[in-house]
Amino acid sequence: MSGWLAVAGLGPGADALITPEVQAALAEATDVVGYIPYVARIAPRPGLTLHPSDNRVELDRARDALRMVAEGRRVVVVSSGDPGVFAMASAVFEALEPCPEWHGLDIRVLPGITAMLAAAAAAGAPLGHDFCAINLSDNLKPLDTVLRRVRLAAEADFAMAFYNPRSRARPEGFGRVLEVLRACCEPGRLMIFARAVSTPEQALRILPLSEVTEDMADMRTVVIVGSSRTRQVGRFTYTPRSA
Amino acid sequence: MSGWLAVAGLGPGADALITPEVQAALAEATDVVGYIPYVARIAPRPGLTLHPSDNRVELDRARDALRMVAEGRRVVVVSSGDPGVFAMASAVFEALEPCPEWHGLDIRVLPGITAMLAAAAAAGAPLGHDFCAINLSDNLKPLDTVLRRVRLAAEADFAMAFYNPRSRARPEGFGRVLEVLRACCEPGRLMIFARAVSTPEQALRILPLSEVTEDMADMRTVVIVGSSRTRQVGRFTYTPRSA
Repeated sequence: MSGWLAVAGLGPGADALITPEVQAALAEATDVVGYIPYVARIAPRPGLTLHPSDNRVELDRARDALRMVAEGRRVVVVSSGDPGVFAMASAVFEALEPCPEWHGLDIRVLPGITAMLAAAAAAGAPLGHDFCAINLSDNLKPLDTVLRRVRLAAEADFAMAFYNPRSRARPEGFGRVLEVLRACCEPGRLMIFARAVSTPEQALRILPLSEVTEDMADMRTVVIVGSSRTRQVGRFTYTPRSA
Repeated sequence: MSGWLAVAGLGPGADALITPEVQAALAEATDVVGYIPYVARIAPRPGLTLHPSDNRVELDRARDALRMVAEGRRVVVVSSGDPGVFAMASAVFEALEPCPEWHGLDIRVLPGITAMLAAAAAAGAPLGHDFCAINLSDNLKPLDTVLRRVRLAAEADFAMAFYNPRSRARPEGFGRVLEVLRACCEPGRLMIFARAVSTPEQALRILPLSEVTEDMADMRTVVIVGSSRTRQVGRFTYTPRSA
């Protein structure tokens, strides 16, 4: 029996945003591994073992998955959104790196709709021209690196998408990011707070930087900052193609 | 009869990467509008009119679609990848802006798997940490703006994804971008050339900046430049989460 690993993206929440490629991998899997709320999205069936695990144990989870694959199991590691964007794919390769005996395993990454694309679509097209994606979490890098990148992104006039903008453990980071934006951008710069996009709890809030407060973001929110050219037409927010 | 517009992403090429949400919109549509090769991906059926059009007529195409919606038709504007990333969604809102009589129309943007996510998944996880997406085409902005953004992105140590890296009309731009990268990045910086990802013609090439030549890119290629931390494990290329 030859095992395989698929590192798969479940999209932002709605089943209608899961690709057929990911559904096919789930249908053939013997094991599903992932963070508790993502594994909870997988329908149980005979022959499928679910392995939910807690947050912040990404490397342990990746090693467990690789071990099962080496034993011949067909394992799907699930992420929300896209597994390659601030999610499990990098953790799997980090776990793989020191273990040459696993380098020959059958491993695939299956893309998904990452949160910023679903948030942008719900708002209009704010990422319609050059943009960047920044993980605001300072779990794995210093806050100064985050702030420096935001400053350079504003200087480049990128639209920006912020993932993990505000955690309970370190709530002050997002306020510091807002300080940088206020120093670099005009007060009317448009910002979008998109919470739980594509789920029944979806909430979308669009307002100028001057009216933003740091409590508007939480860990289920993706924040998009427009470029200097981003504007509104009717209920939509978009960035022109010539920005 | 009340018409609607769905601006939908068909993903990078494989049908298995089209979301069920987009398939459902196509199943209910009366008209499909888009660039010739994308409309060619839609299966004809009775009751569905296909409107393929040439490249570089995005605004005309968007106006035609909005006019049909105003007449009560159910129209899908198709893009490859994600419609909100260097594709038709911004063109639709640009066409909408000067026409207040159309602002109340039922318009939705349906996200898709954009090329850089599929290319990254095929290579491993090179966009696994902070990154940016830049359209290298200078059709709608000066080349100097492109070069300045690439320089600032390198300074921020973003991984980068380049769309439309090289056109027949203006082939010299990509060479200028490579000059900027050579000035800002170490010679071993990893680059990925991903052509026609997820199609039978998929070709993936991974090599250090020092070995890159400008003829490696064409309009069907997405180019990914790693950050300073991007590295290889076995046949995979990835950026660690703590970059």
